[in-house]
Amino acid sequence: MTRKQLVENIKAKKSFLCVGLDTDPLKIPRHIAEGPDPIFNFNKAIIDATAPYCVAYKPNMAFYESFGAAGWDALERTVRYLKENYPDQFIIADAKRGDIGNTSKLYARSFFEHLDVDAITVAPYMGEDSVTPFLGYEGKWVILLALTSNKGSHDFQLIKDAEGTPLFEQVIEKSSKWAGPDEMMYVVGATQGRMFEDIRRVAPRSFLLVPGVGAQGGSLEEVVKYGMIDDCGLLVNSSRGIIYASSGEDFAERAGEEARKLRDQMAALLK
Amino acid sequence: MTRKQLVENIKAKKSFLCVGLDTDPLKIPRHIAEGPDPIFNFNKAIIDATAPYCVAYKPNMAFYESFGAAGWDALERTVRYLKENYPDQFIIADAKRGDIGNTSKLYARSFFEHLDVDAITVAPYMGEDSVTPFLGYEGKWVILLALTSNKGSHDFQLIKDAEGTPLFEQVIEKSSKWAGPDEMMYVVGATQGRMFEDIRRVAPRSFLLVPGVGAQGGSLEEVVKYGMIDDCGLLVNSSRGIIYASSGEDFAERAGEEARKLRDQMAALLK
Repeated sequence: MTRKQLVENIKAKKSFLCVGLDTDPLKIPRHIAEGPDPIFNFNKAIIDATAPYCVAYKPNMAFYESFGAAGWDALERTVRYLKENYPDQFIIADAKRGDIGNTSKLYARSFFEHLDVDAITVAPYMGEDSVTPFLGYEGKWVILLALTSNKGSHDFQLIKDAEGTPLFEQVIEKSSKWAGPDEMMYVVGATQGRMFEDIRRVAPRSFLLVPGVGAQGGSLEEVVKYGMIDDCGLLVNSSRGIIYASSGEDFAERAGEEARKLRDQMAALLK
Repeated sequence: MTRKQLVENIKAKKSFLCVGLDTDPLKIPRHIAEGPDPIFNFNKAIIDATAPYCVAYKPNMAFYESFGAAGWDALERTVRYLKENYPDQFIIADAKRGDIGNTSKLYARSFFEHLDVDAITVAPYMGEDSVTPFLGYEGKWVILLALTSNKGSHDFQLIKDAEGTPLFEQVIEKSSKWAGPDEMMYVVGATQGRMFEDIRRVAPRSFLLVPGVGAQGGSLEEVVKYGMIDDCGLLVNSSRGIIYASSGEDFAERAGEEARKLRDQMAALLK
């Protein structure tokens, strides 16, 4: 999906919501968990209920990998279901991959050719030749980790060099020479508040994928205040707050309501 | 596997060789590629031919993921084959994972419970709570990326802070507070030569997993000279140089020969 298409979808839906499909069989409603094909059936119900209110879905690979081959299979069918029924949704594989060149090339093939998602999250630690193999696929995106939402983000991402530039800014500065803002986004946690100002200094035009609103305590208003740009430039993710809103028979309905609430807040903030 | 067992295996076999199972269906011999179950059958033949000369196997997840569910399945059967037939082999999932706490916990479950390998490679960028969920599994190991073998390792890993300490050293120093050298190893590329001296200053007792000998140009003698410690403390990986030594019918035999050559060099260096 091109940036233009993504921005059009955001405008049309008045939403920059991404729903995280962190499907954990220990947390999904019992009547689904005990039925046939629980991961796929849960995803399908969540997607049908939330699709009107969001522009993107982000399955986190860990949840599918924890079931090995069966988990991969459920993910493949989930992606296919999205593409066939909701082709305007931007699909992000939250994989945080990154390896030496010939190996990253294979990951790119898995995610962009085999699984055929729109974007993949990539970890920057191994540098340029671990990231560039994901580039150059038409309409596909790299979403590079910059400043994450977790406590451990402070361990290395904030380390300053001799000139006082923190690592996450160097990641953005260097990587912006590898790809422009029509092909690369950055992960910036909603928990980082005013740091969005620093991010916008080094990444004025990039889309930011923002996890950590809700369960992790980030504020949507702050993210918008310091992070929003002309064509929005934000995809705000919510996972647990939506998909586990209820563990009863009404889980999908309740997920839809939570997504709608966030969409309503977003619509007001988008203006 | 405990450190004691690993060191005993190294002494018994006079080898600290790890064979990288980077099984690429485009590179395996045609008679295998065109037959049934090519990934597993290639792995099985390589393992049977090389097991006498190595102490570890390292499948890189990218190669298996590039075939989605089918690739995962072939990997699961490869691991089972190793555990049933060569229980003294140390199995490393080269996955370079790392995510927020509850997600890393799921990756840990996939690799240590479902797949049941001995070790997993982990990327440090997201800090402590992305790494610690992999710890505390008895006999299981985290192998943290420190200084990798690729060109891009220079982009971020060598950035010095205000006191002149490069990032990879900070990764080792901080992470050594999360786990001791009986539970955590580090990835240090063979292409880094004398940098092994710096590594040994901050990680005097840790095992190092060393990729980059052979195809990537690293020298075994240099690695041993600057990196070996009392109980060896090294696992040197070779992938392409062994598993693709021949693309003919003799591929397994030739892989065995290449592994034996490396074992002979290692035996001489171990003394």
